[in-house]
Amino acid sequence: MQIHSELKERRDKIRNLMVQKSIDAALITCNVNMIYTCGRVISGYLYLPVRGNGILFIKRPNNITGEQVVSIRKPEQIPALLQERGVAIPETLMLEGDELPYTEYCRLAKVFESSTCVNGTPLIRTARAIKTPIEIRMFEKAAAAHIRAYSQIPSVYRDGMTDLEFSIEIERLMRLEGCLGIFRVFGQSMEIFMGSVLTGSNAEAPSPYDFALGGNGLDPTLPGGANGNFLRSGQSVMVDIGGNFNGYMCDMSRVYSIDKLSDEALRAHQVCLEIQNEVAVLAKPGTLCEDLYNKAIEIVTREGFADKFMGTRQQAGFIGHGIGLQINEAPVLAPRVKQILEPGMVFALEPKIIIPEIGPVGIENSWVVTQEGVRKLTDCPEEIIEL
Amino acid sequence: MQIHSELKERRDKIRNLMVQKSIDAALITCNVNMIYTCGRVISGYLYLPVRGNGILFIKRPNNITGEQVVSIRKPEQIPALLQERGVAIPETLMLEGDELPYTEYCRLAKVFESSTCVNGTPLIRTARAIKTPIEIRMFEKAAAAHIRAYSQIPSVYRDGMTDLEFSIEIERLMRLEGCLGIFRVFGQSMEIFMGSVLTGSNAEAPSPYDFALGGNGLDPTLPGGANGNFLRSGQSVMVDIGGNFNGYMCDMSRVYSIDKLSDEALRAHQVCLEIQNEVAVLAKPGTLCEDLYNKAIEIVTREGFADKFMGTRQQAGFIGHGIGLQINEAPVLAPRVKQILEPGMVFALEPKIIIPEIGPVGIENSWVVTQEGVRKLTDCPEEIIEL
Repeated sequence: MQIHSELKERRDKIRNLMVQKSIDAALITCNVNMIYTCGRVISGYLYLPVRGNGILFIKRPNNITGEQVVSIRKPEQIPALLQERGVAIPETLMLEGDELPYTEYCRLAKVFESSTCVNGTPLIRTARAIKTPIEIRMFEKAAAAHIRAYSQIPSVYRDGMTDLEFSIEIERLMRLEGCLGIFRVFGQSMEIFMGSVLTGSNAEAPSPYDFALGGNGLDPTLPGGANGNFLRSGQSVMVDIGGNFNGYMCDMSRVYSIDKLSDEALRAHQVCLEIQNEVAVLAKPGTLCEDLYNKAIEIVTREGFADKFMGTRQQAGFIGHGIGLQINEAPVLAPRVKQILEPGMVFALEPKIIIPEIGPVGIENSWVVTQEGVRKLTDCPEEIIEL
Repeated sequence: MQIHSELKERRDKIRNLMVQKSIDAALITCNVNMIYTCGRVISGYLYLPVRGNGILFIKRPNNITGEQVVSIRKPEQIPALLQERGVAIPETLMLEGDELPYTEYCRLAKVFESSTCVNGTPLIRTARAIKTPIEIRMFEKAAAAHIRAYSQIPSVYRDGMTDLEFSIEIERLMRLEGCLGIFRVFGQSMEIFMGSVLTGSNAEAPSPYDFALGGNGLDPTLPGGANGNFLRSGQSVMVDIGGNFNGYMCDMSRVYSIDKLSDEALRAHQVCLEIQNEVAVLAKPGTLCEDLYNKAIEIVTREGFADKFMGTRQQAGFIGHGIGLQINEAPVLAPRVKQILEPGMVFALEPKIIIPEIGPVGIENSWVVTQEGVRKLTDCPEEIIEL
């Protein structure tokens, strides 16, 4: 496997952070980190020393070869294979402690029992938070496909549909534009099928997850999103389907209405657009994440919608989140988050208000932090579209 | 939350195994185990002592109440809340060691630092392997919906389609019949969108995963399944889309053809049906899993298809697998597996042969082990259907 310059750049970002922490090597195996460092999913392990070439130990598939590729059956073979190649066993080894199951971490720590093993997940996530130009280009491609799919949404609406039927037709549009469908989330506990379509009172149903909004879903085994209610006149419907077209989770929500919405709902939507626009003016390299959150709260409180912002009966405690190979990367736009924006960060900003009995209004776009400020990746009409 | 008799029965199965291992209590938090013991996904922890009532500590959602329900912000609150209720801190506590991320496991072990923490995942999976009558009923309902969706597959085929376009229409049929879409797999490394549709030479592409067949997929970030090739005359197409309609992962594959297949492909399909039928005759309470696998190998070898069985360039080392809330539960029908079948086990049996250039043939059904033998849950036509 040829390690082209893009993968080298990503690996070097990880290595530079390893130097700062006096970590000698990383053993990477979780899918998103394999995608990040190797460009694809492989069942195996990338051994990444702080200096020298990475070595890819592969269990499966059996058709990848290369100078730095070694076929293995199990990780216990790795130390001897390293020594055969003259690679020293590391004093400090970084494993994916927030991602690997406990028993797998312990197994790898035993394989490297003479090494001190440390949790490398936060470090890798720090590296992944600043996207390379090629990663930003992949987001731009995903955003273009996401926009193409959403632009067809009005064409699949039929009177008398349920939220679920509407969701299914939108899922199909997304897939036809190339959406891979899979929705990757950091952490083992949050699950969602392609995204959510929310209308009416279902939007108020509190979620077990840390997503922006809830919904009852179809079944208690997968709460969240559409619950099979009919789309009714005077209600809004928010479409928030994940835009994973190439591994990168582009994130965008748009609001539709069945006939006209109440003046309150229309005004709430404008408040969300105002929040988005004010936050976008504020957002630039050096801005504190908490300042963006506080600006949103200031506006929504002034406008009288604080008790309906990001939910009613249960409110999400953020207005945006980093995106990348997973939907919830750094940074988080939330209270008390002192992290600053840096060029190359990509995040979703999603001010949303729920109007009881009517449904959600608001906006979500994906943004990239540039040298000067932020640029909208999902640039397409933001007004409520009457179906 | 009322704990009805079904959930009590499931919890008691876990407790009976805990007694045998001298484990005093379990702390359960992973989604599938919460579904199993609480009937739904909850962000929180079920504290399940070997004697006495379980207590559900809930972070989210905020609308579940009950005598045995306690609202918490973080797991560090649990020991004091147990003591308030007069519940003794356990000497031995079972955590989900194969499922929890390393750092989460360590955090919980620290919360219960006076307890000896052990990995409870294998024990819970043992309990889950034997389904209750109600779980089998849920499988029957899922199978009926799965069959309804598959019966409509010929109606969505159009000449000139790609495997991806065909897959998308089948995904839609499944969703319209109520499929939840999400595909739950045990272990952090195997990922798949709703299932796979494989045709022609793409079926030979080796997978990084331990699924029965591979396929290149659309993108290196999600290998497996359809790759966008056209469905061509003389080729087979195998549909293997997961049947999660209520949490339980019903599993079924059927083969279609574009015009007629070669005699070799047709014969290979019959060999797979013969394997299925012979294995089903052999399978009953007390049968060793390896004996079922060996029977399949005996037949496929005799018939001259051993080098194309379960893949060509890379072959899967099993012919079936337990199913339940995840697609890969106990038992596994594989060599050297000494586990015996027991009444209440549910498994998928999937003898498949790949004919190079043509595609996969064979069959997959979901089966339940009864007192006398096995019963097919996904009972519907098994011959190749010409599109």
